[in-house]
Amino acid sequence: MQSTALEKQLAFLREIDRLKTVVRQSSLLDKSRKENSAEHSWHLAMYALILSEYACGPINKNRVIQMLLLHDIVEIDVGDFPIHSESSNESQTEQESRAAERLFGLLPQQQGNELLGLWQEFERAETDDAKFAKALDRFQPLLVNVFTGGGTWIESSVSFEQVFSRYGPIIKRGAPLLWAVCEQWVTRHFGE
Amino acid sequence: MQSTALEKQLAFLREIDRLKTVVRQSSLLDKSRKENSAEHSWHLAMYALILSEYACGPINKNRVIQMLLLHDIVEIDVGDFPIHSESSNESQTEQESRAAERLFGLLPQQQGNELLGLWQEFERAETDDAKFAKALDRFQPLLVNVFTGGGTWIESSVSFEQVFSRYGPIIKRGAPLLWAVCEQWVTRHFGE
Ligand SMILES: [Ca+2]
Repeated sequence: MQSTALEKQLAFLREIDRLKTVVRQSSLLDKSRKENSAEHSWHLAMYALILSEYACGPINKNRVIQMLLLHDIVEIDVGDFPIHSESSNESQTEQESRAAERLFGLLPQQQGNELLGLWQEFERAETDDAKFAKALDRFQPLLVNVFTGGGTWIESSVSFEQVFSRYGPIIKRGAPLLWAVCEQWVTRHFGE
Repeated sequence: MQSTALEKQLAFLREIDRLKTVVRQSSLLDKSRKENSAEHSWHLAMYALILSEYACGPINKNRVIQMLLLHDIVEIDVGDFPIHSESSNESQTEQESRAAERLFGLLPQQQGNELLGLWQEFERAETDDAKFAKALDRFQPLLVNVFTGGGTWIESSVSFEQVFSRYGPIIKRGAPLLWAVCEQWVTRHFGE
């Protein structure tokens, strides 16, 4: 028996509930526990809603919000790859693509293809929308580290130079004015 | 010294991190723990993205997504009022309004007013956008209860008639086709 469009859509919405159980390296600002990828995605969508005026170019705020809402759902299959880890980038990309195809494949075909396209656009980071979305995805964990007095930088013994090279280019490319503020914070944090 | 626009925006984004610590009555679908209001808001925004075709009238999907992203932030000050509780509705509305003014008041004035307006529109539930958003906010916890074999209906001894009266009018008003499916599930669940 064929599933109806609504049955497929509900199967997708049911499956992505699992993003709430994917735990990231960053903690909440009150340090009570680590953040999960679903609430992280919510927070990033709010960042896009509030900070769109700092984007590198003319962006469509609502597309950026949609991208950020779905950018991490592949972690349901492959987990979160932390910024400060030694993972092989090639196998990560491959695994994430497979996960995206499986997850968006749960949806009615046309809708699934549209959202898969939006996810791929985010990953490629070539459009202004995607560059801004990627910048926010780096900006938020940097902020958490600054606001919590070091966070994953201390846990993973990350140096001043590593912070600049791992966050700088991506934030600067998508949101240059936000990176200007980050530079001050990071410099102050590391006492440089 | 006056804060810059960006400083105000970051103060807001920092403050709303606390929504991740507001625990709701509904659990995750795997029943591992209760859901928090930040990840709930993410999930609802995804519901709006995926299910917009079932809205009662012509809606602007992106406005609905924005509404759902911010609809619960007042819970940072007042907590979650569960569907199946005996709280006084008047004092609840008053407290939530004060919370909305405090929180959106952290933002630069024009931006804060715009988002406060969107939150008020959701609360009033007079526009098609708000009616659909409200419908999804009832539909999602109903789904959780159906998918987890009872959930808060069992915990709070909720009857078949109470489910119909507490969820039905709001879901039907904003998303009649979704309510038609709910009726079948609920009837089957209660063995009526
Ligand atoms: Ca609520």
